[in-house]
Amino acid sequence: MSKKMETLVRRLQNQITAAIEELEGPDGGKFFRDSWVRAEGGVGSSCVLQSGKVFEKAGVNISIIASKAPEGMLQHMRARKRTGIEKGPYNMFVAGISLVMHPHNPMCPTVHANYRYFELVDEDGDHSKPVASWFGGGCDLTPSYLFEDDARHFHATIKEACDKHDKTYYPRFKTWCDEYFHILHRGERRGVGGIFFDDLEDRPAEETYAFVESCGTSFVDQYVPIVKRRMNLPYTEENKQWQQLRRGRYVEFNLVNDRGTKFGLATPGVRIESVLMSLPLTARWEYCHTPEEGSPEAKLLEVLKNPRDWV
Amino acid sequence: MSKKMETLVRRLQNQITAAIEELEGPDGGKFFRDSWVRAEGGVGSSCVLQSGKVFEKAGVNISIIASKAPEGMLQHMRARKRTGIEKGPYNMFVAGISLVMHPHNPMCPTVHANYRYFELVDEDGDHSKPVASWFGGGCDLTPSYLFEDDARHFHATIKEACDKHDKTYYPRFKTWCDEYFHILHRGERRGVGGIFFDDLEDRPAEETYAFVESCGTSFVDQYVPIVKRRMNLPYTEENKQWQQLRRGRYVEFNLVNDRGTKFGLATPGVRIESVLMSLPLTARWEYCHTPEEGSPEAKLLEVLKNPRDWV
Repeated sequence: MSKKMETLVRRLQNQITAAIEELEGPDGGKFFRDSWVRAEGGVGSSCVLQSGKVFEKAGVNISIIASKAPEGMLQHMRARKRTGIEKGPYNMFVAGISLVMHPHNPMCPTVHANYRYFELVDEDGDHSKPVASWFGGGCDLTPSYLFEDDARHFHATIKEACDKHDKTYYPRFKTWCDEYFHILHRGERRGVGGIFFDDLEDRPAEETYAFVESCGTSFVDQYVPIVKRRMNLPYTEENKQWQQLRRGRYVEFNLVNDRGTKFGLATPGVRIESVLMSLPLTARWEYCHTPEEGSPEAKLLEVLKNPRDWV
Repeated sequence: MSKKMETLVRRLQNQITAAIEELEGPDGGKFFRDSWVRAEGGVGSSCVLQSGKVFEKAGVNISIIASKAPEGMLQHMRARKRTGIEKGPYNMFVAGISLVMHPHNPMCPTVHANYRYFELVDEDGDHSKPVASWFGGGCDLTPSYLFEDDARHFHATIKEACDKHDKTYYPRFKTWCDEYFHILHRGERRGVGGIFFDDLEDRPAEETYAFVESCGTSFVDQYVPIVKRRMNLPYTEENKQWQQLRRGRYVEFNLVNDRGTKFGLATPGVRIESVLMSLPLTARWEYCHTPEEGSPEAKLLEVLKNPRDWV
């Protein structure tokens, strides 16, 4: 499974960066690609596009880690009541893709997705018989202005990918997403949600892999049609400022609430630019900004405070 | 002492906002002042100036809290090995001032200062005999471009205020400041430092109060001369973008590392806009931005990585 997942995230990185460059057009932004090697074992590849024609910043990161599982990480897993990993030491294998796209046009939503596979094996064990293994991931859409069509399209496309594998996946993971992407100190969700799941291990790895593959492969269909219909809409300076305030909230979620970012920031020797790649190019904080009642800005806030069902 | 400290923070708020409005000039920005009442007991007053002529955003907050001391807070204090507060329940009194100024001109540094007094009394006890009481605070300067004169002036002025009370204060609190304002995941200090102290209770409260009063009162002399000589310097678009990147680091420190902000975000019923008032109006994140060797930007980074003695 480790090889298979590695192949998947590499394929997704190529497929998704190609789709984004197509949106940028022939004279538009190109992804800058760089690779890194983790001293403790592992490699990564970051694709980042900055100040493009359509996107302010877009990044698609993959990492393939194969190293000793740090004892602190194992303790953390045991504390989360994971059983069967009492012995150790173990080796770990992680393959994951993480992406975020921040478009220029305030009518065009930000998107994020992340899919990862985690495997623990005995120190001399082979990868065909892991001690434990699971999948995690999801995707979510963060508009500055609410277009209900976009939210419906995004959720419907994800639901289609989920339903092929288990009809309970979409409703469970949609709720989980609304709970997870919660800026607690604001009482707001980050956006209109999507799906979120973690520690998925109740079925044979092959079956869960197939589900994750469907989700990842459907990313382009989830997002690209939305960009196409919003990227050239007219907007005002006020629209742009509101988008910048929402970017500020995105920063707050990622730095204060997001478990992945917190974990990354606390990991010694981590490549900090890859961890913080998800931050927007620009953001804004205005003291006590409150949208006018009935305005499009207030309409978005209403949905962020009270998540809706979109399909 | 509680009344005295309340009077001090109110006086400082008036004095400092007046000095900043003077820098803005007759046609410049004015502070917007609003007050709030904490349901659990206490009041606050926030003065915020936004999009002024000299300052992008400036805020001077005071809060005067008088309420039951939450059990969680007492546990936290006991865990930090504070003795003499084993019994409880207690009432608490807190009076503090917190300020931050973000100028437009990238040659003109951001500044922050905070002074606070904390007191625990028996539930029916009177404030003249607190069970425990201490002071905390400090100030620090955050330039985007290093002017050594400014760092020297800032530190010399603080040292003068400290030395009147105890010659060991400045060197101890200067070092503590360099340790505290550390963006750990970047390996950078937030700026060129200043002083930082907490849990100051080894002397009679009157003596420590006099020290804190000196520090707070000297704020205008610490900062205003620096603004005057930098606020009208010419700058380029590249200078502005570098300032915006440094603003991004400021956001990272405040949301990830700052104990005060973390405490604020985790406190139920807190006024979130006052906690996050310290964030800049605008900030920027560029992937893998690295200043050219020998450039003014690299010169700043060098000092942030290796704090210097300025007096």
